[in-house]
Amino acid sequence: MGIHTYFRSLNDLERIIRTPGKFKFEEHSVSAHSWKVVQYAKTLADIEELNGVPINWKKLYEITSSHDYGEIFIGDIKTPVKHSSLELRSMLQQVEEGMIRHFIEENIPEEFQGIFRRQLREGKDGSLEGLILEVADKMDQVYEAFAELQRGNTEKEFVLMYRHALIKIKNIDLHCVRYFLGHILPDIIEESQISPIDIKGITEEALAQQ
Amino acid sequence: MGIHTYFRSLNDLERIIRTPGKFKFEEHSVSAHSWKVVQYAKTLADIEELNGVPINWKKLYEITSSHDYGEIFIGDIKTPVKHSSLELRSMLQQVEEGMIRHFIEENIPEEFQGIFRRQLREGKDGSLEGLILEVADKMDQVYEAFAELQRGNTEKEFVLMYRHALIKIKNIDLHCVRYFLGHILPDIIEESQISPIDIKGITEEALAQQ
Amino acid sequence: MGIHTYFRSLNDLERIIRTPGKFKFEEHSVSAHSWKVVQYAKTLADIEELNGVPINWKKLYEITSSHDYGEIFIGDIKTPVKHSSLELRSMLQQVEEGMIRHFIEENIPEEFQGIFRRQLREGKDGSLEGLILEVADKMDQVYEAFAELQRGNTEKEFVLMYRHALIKIKNIDLHCVRYFLGHILPDIIEESQISPIDIKGITEEALAQQ
Amino acid sequence: MGIHTYFRSLNDLERIIRTPGKFKFEEHSVSAHSWKVVQYAKTLADIEELNGVPINWKKLYEITSSHDYGEIFIGDIKTPVKHSSLELRSMLQQVEEGMIRHFIEENIPEEFQGIFRRQLREGKDGSLEGLILEVADKMDQVYEAFAELQRGNTEKEFVLMYRHALIKIKNIDLHCVRYFLGHILPDIIEESQISPIDIKGITEEALAQQ
Amino acid sequence: MGIHTYFRSLNDLERIIRTPGKFKFEEHSVSAHSWKVVQYAKTLADIEELNGVPINWKKLYEITSSHDYGEIFIGDIKTPVKHSSLELRSMLQQVEEGMIRHFIEENIPEEFQGIFRRQLREGKDGSLEGLILEVADKMDQVYEAFAELQRGNTEKEFVLMYRHALIKIKNIDLHCVRYFLGHILPDIIEESQISPIDIKGITEEALAQQ
Amino acid sequence: MGIHTYFRSLNDLERIIRTPGKFKFEEHSVSAHSWKVVQYAKTLADIEELNGVPINWKKLYEITSSHDYGEIFIGDIKTPVKHSSLELRSMLQQVEEGMIRHFIEENIPEEFQGIFRRQLREGKDGSLEGLILEVADKMDQVYEAFAELQRGNTEKEFVLMYRHALIKIKNIDLHCVRYFLGHILPDIIEESQISPIDIKGITEEALAQQ
Repeated sequence: MGIHTYFRSLNDLERIIRTPGKFKFEEHSVSAHSWKVVQYAKTLADIEELNGVPINWKKLYEITSSHDYGEIFIGDIKTPVKHSSLELRSMLQQVEEGMIRHFIEENIPEEFQGIFRRQLREGKDGSLEGLILEVADKMDQVYEAFAELQRGNTEKEFVLMYRHALIKIKNIDLHCVRYFLGHILPDIIEESQISPIDIKGITEEALAQQ
Repeated sequence: MGIHTYFRSLNDLERIIRTPGKFKFEEHSVSAHSWKVVQYAKTLADIEELNGVPINWKKLYEITSSHDYGEIFIGDIKTPVKHSSLELRSMLQQVEEGMIRHFIEENIPEEFQGIFRRQLREGKDGSLEGLILEVADKMDQVYEAFAELQRGNTEKEFVLMYRHALIKIKNIDLHCVRYFLGHILPDIIEESQISPIDIKGITEEALAQQ
Repeated sequence: MGIHTYFRSLNDLERIIRTPGKFKFEEHSVSAHSWKVVQYAKTLADIEELNGVPINWKKLYEITSSHDYGEIFIGDIKTPVKHSSLELRSMLQQVEEGMIRHFIEENIPEEFQGIFRRQLREGKDGSLEGLILEVADKMDQVYEAFAELQRGNTEKEFVLMYRHALIKIKNIDLHCVRYFLGHILPDIIEESQISPIDIKGITEEALAQQ
Repeated sequence: MGIHTYFRSLNDLERIIRTPGKFKFEEHSVSAHSWKVVQYAKTLADIEELNGVPINWKKLYEITSSHDYGEIFIGDIKTPVKHSSLELRSMLQQVEEGMIRHFIEENIPEEFQGIFRRQLREGKDGSLEGLILEVADKMDQVYEAFAELQRGNTEKEFVLMYRHALIKIKNIDLHCVRYFLGHILPDIIEESQISPIDIKGITEEALAQQ
Repeated sequence: MGIHTYFRSLNDLERIIRTPGKFKFEEHSVSAHSWKVVQYAKTLADIEELNGVPINWKKLYEITSSHDYGEIFIGDIKTPVKHSSLELRSMLQQVEEGMIRHFIEENIPEEFQGIFRRQLREGKDGSLEGLILEVADKMDQVYEAFAELQRGNTEKEFVLMYRHALIKIKNIDLHCVRYFLGHILPDIIEESQISPIDIKGITEEALAQQ
Repeated sequence: MGIHTYFRSLNDLERIIRTPGKFKFEEHSVSAHSWKVVQYAKTLADIEELNGVPINWKKLYEITSSHDYGEIFIGDIKTPVKHSSLELRSMLQQVEEGMIRHFIEENIPEEFQGIFRRQLREGKDGSLEGLILEVADKMDQVYEAFAELQRGNTEKEFVLMYRHALIKIKNIDLHCVRYFLGHILPDIIEESQISPIDIKGITEEALAQQ
């Protein structure tokens, strides 16, 4: 078949759960993660533009929306596995690329093959758009880990995820990273220090209303 | 707070389920739907470009990725309700717009308010990008309804959803619609006619392998 | 078809989730909410009877058990939307009533149409039974919000839900409301102040058992 | 504590699933089942009244809404176990009644204890209201089993559940049973014979629309 | 049919949830519980062997892996019900055994019936292997209850479950129990006293990284 | 910490779902799969013993119960990835073994390290017990795929899974494999050909009962 095979396959990413077995409060599908990355990246690019940096929106659109499509073929391989050796990492990447190439050849009509090859390649190159994707992807790890830690999940894996993502982000030299560090991260910290809701107080205040 | 409030709110759309109570095989979150619309729209726009039509990728990015963000404020109002009278529909749209405006004023720093107002407005205007969004949005209804009907869900609501979405799509005059009708829809139909798997046959074939 | 269509439709309310995207600990279906309202209302009416007030049990039965049936037709519209303007609210109510009327005409045999029209109308009129329904409905919001807040969900929406429901309840002049404020609410508050379980203490006590 | 303990406990029945491990398409909580029984019983009683039979609505309200509350204490004991010997059945019933008695004594204020004892006793006595409860309870087994069988679940347990429930219902001599057998059951059968949706046909019809 | 009926039935235990309605953070299927008991028992037996006590591994394998298979027939009967009287308990056990006997006679080929009768009998006899099963089964109650209590579930049922399981374990005179009390339980207690994660601190440390 | 860290980690395998995104009717956790493999292997070994072949039950217990524990460290890597090249496969195995070694060194007290190293190594060696594990593991793929295909899931991945598992099994020369092919597989095939339930027929038969 043709592009239908590709469109239909998108549905499967809603059933692939990120870091299975660890999230105790809210689980996240690869689809929902992908959409949030698209959204963060849009605002990050807006910040760059506000600072006078031109954005290639077509490229940014392509690489952010497809950046985890390859998980359909290779499944959820844990980050420590991927990073355990440079050799293994590059071999896994070759396998993923081979499977994507094979999928395109088998299913995508010839006139679209070039487009799909470009869209489904690894997007995290050194370009501005690739860096924004990197920041947006890590930002979702920050948000995912934060939501668990804040609610009392003491799983060490989320401390590591949060910490590594932050270190990765802060070392990227972009206007939007500076904005994140200066204006967004402080709000995250502030939220982490909210006291539990005082139910007794709210009740008394409500009963005192006229 | 600031943009953090907006980023954190994205998470809630993963817990809002489309057409609750009707999907019997696979449910879909608003996040996953939004991501699929982003993906369909990208390929539809590629088809337009292959036919020589220029695309405003920044605009397409903005309107597809945010097109259902407003559901955070107004919830899941059923299509027949929205369409029961023009007056009600426009009133609901005004309420949604008012809530989005209020959210932006309360949370988004002034220098970004213009950007957010543009991104979170209704994207289905008469422009090429607006029409592509309309097609992509309906295409997901086609795929969602198809997946239920094909597996034996006889719920009338999905027949209507599938049928209305198809009628809406076919009346939009675009290259990508012609491609969809000529090359993608036939594959959907063909898939609807696949016979059940012959388990006995596969077993015998497997046992006969050397 | 006939009453079968109505009976079968009841099942769909188990898949409609209240306030989707907000409950982080336990979600609630419209069916389960409806059953709890039926149960609260029964005890509230018992309190009225103990105080010498006569109850129309048939009416109370009808209006409590069916009070959210209309959500099958209109979906889950958020409270702030419904209340954003009197005009919108009355228009939404007209649409819901029109859809219920249409459903009854299409599906319910003529000899039952009067009964269904009475049962599926809005039950929150100014009568004693209508007021008890109002209290019971708000009481479930108190319990739903309380269960989230107590476990550490700091979502502002639950503070508002809890507070508004309490204010609504306390302004209704009934024996059962006075009982709720004087005897039930204090137990809720007391429970909100229970300290976390002292696992070390329990362990030591258990090990010291003969 | 007092009635608060009872109100809060209602929530637990939303997490107790009926016949766990068997439903493959849609699971049902005890809460949702209880609500559907309340709804069926209301219409069954309406049919009796239309035939000139007087109903004790207060009693019907009490016994239908609370009929499975005892599952909080004893859990989900499979029907074949309960019925394996008269002696075991009566012993289990004594245990359940003992636990309910104990709960009432521990938690319910003295002035309400009589009411709660009456409401939480076994409602399926030989009275008209008790018989209507019996019919409504079995009717939900018919609907639950039907929904699984119709979608292709070939589990023998549902054939037995459907068949036993029907036999139980048909042997109860009430106007509403005659109505069920004559007007509702035929619609169930008719629905069981609906052919799968013809997706190709719908597509062609939709594309032919102007 | 034959052994296929038994193999296929194993699947149903993945849909039977333990203590339904009580776990608020993570639910557990009977399958997953059974597997954890198999795993604990293996290590407990290793500890016995390290102390020079010989283990009948075949027997231990048989009784741990099948110890809750009977729940397929009788469902989840709450512990307080089972223990409410010795008479009821023995009657329930007779019913369960009768159902297992019947299942074996109906489905298991004659040459395997002896094996299945031995494997599916109650394994908690006074033998070393039976005692290890008892410890392992209670140990999972300790872990299940601990995980809820530690996260803030204040449900009394888990305090009781944790406490009773501990008392049961400590009264069994085995090397592995002494190891559990001396080396594993202290780690559980220590973990219960971990403070919430200091998100602000981690953030500052991460940002200070080079 | 010590063995507590290992015991507590077992819980995570209940949240890791096998082949995520593909099962449309019933999902399976790694825990439930592991337990079913333990159960199949027990009966397969019983068949060997009935044929006079001696079994090392301790070894069989160890390798079947722990055979997928490593997924805690490496996640769910799809079979085609693992098998795409011998080099990648062996590298992934080295990484998994390294992580297990590291876990043991960090957490397991020295006197148990040898035992854990033996138990958590790859169990599918050429020994009788290793072959039984291989058969039991593939048998669960047969059952998992069969349950989906029989209910109408036409996903090609399950046809491949079913077929490859069968071919793998039939090429292992064991008494229990011959028993499976001769007595269990025919029952699976027979079940695949059961017609849908005739609801009308059952209804008529039930109504005709006295």
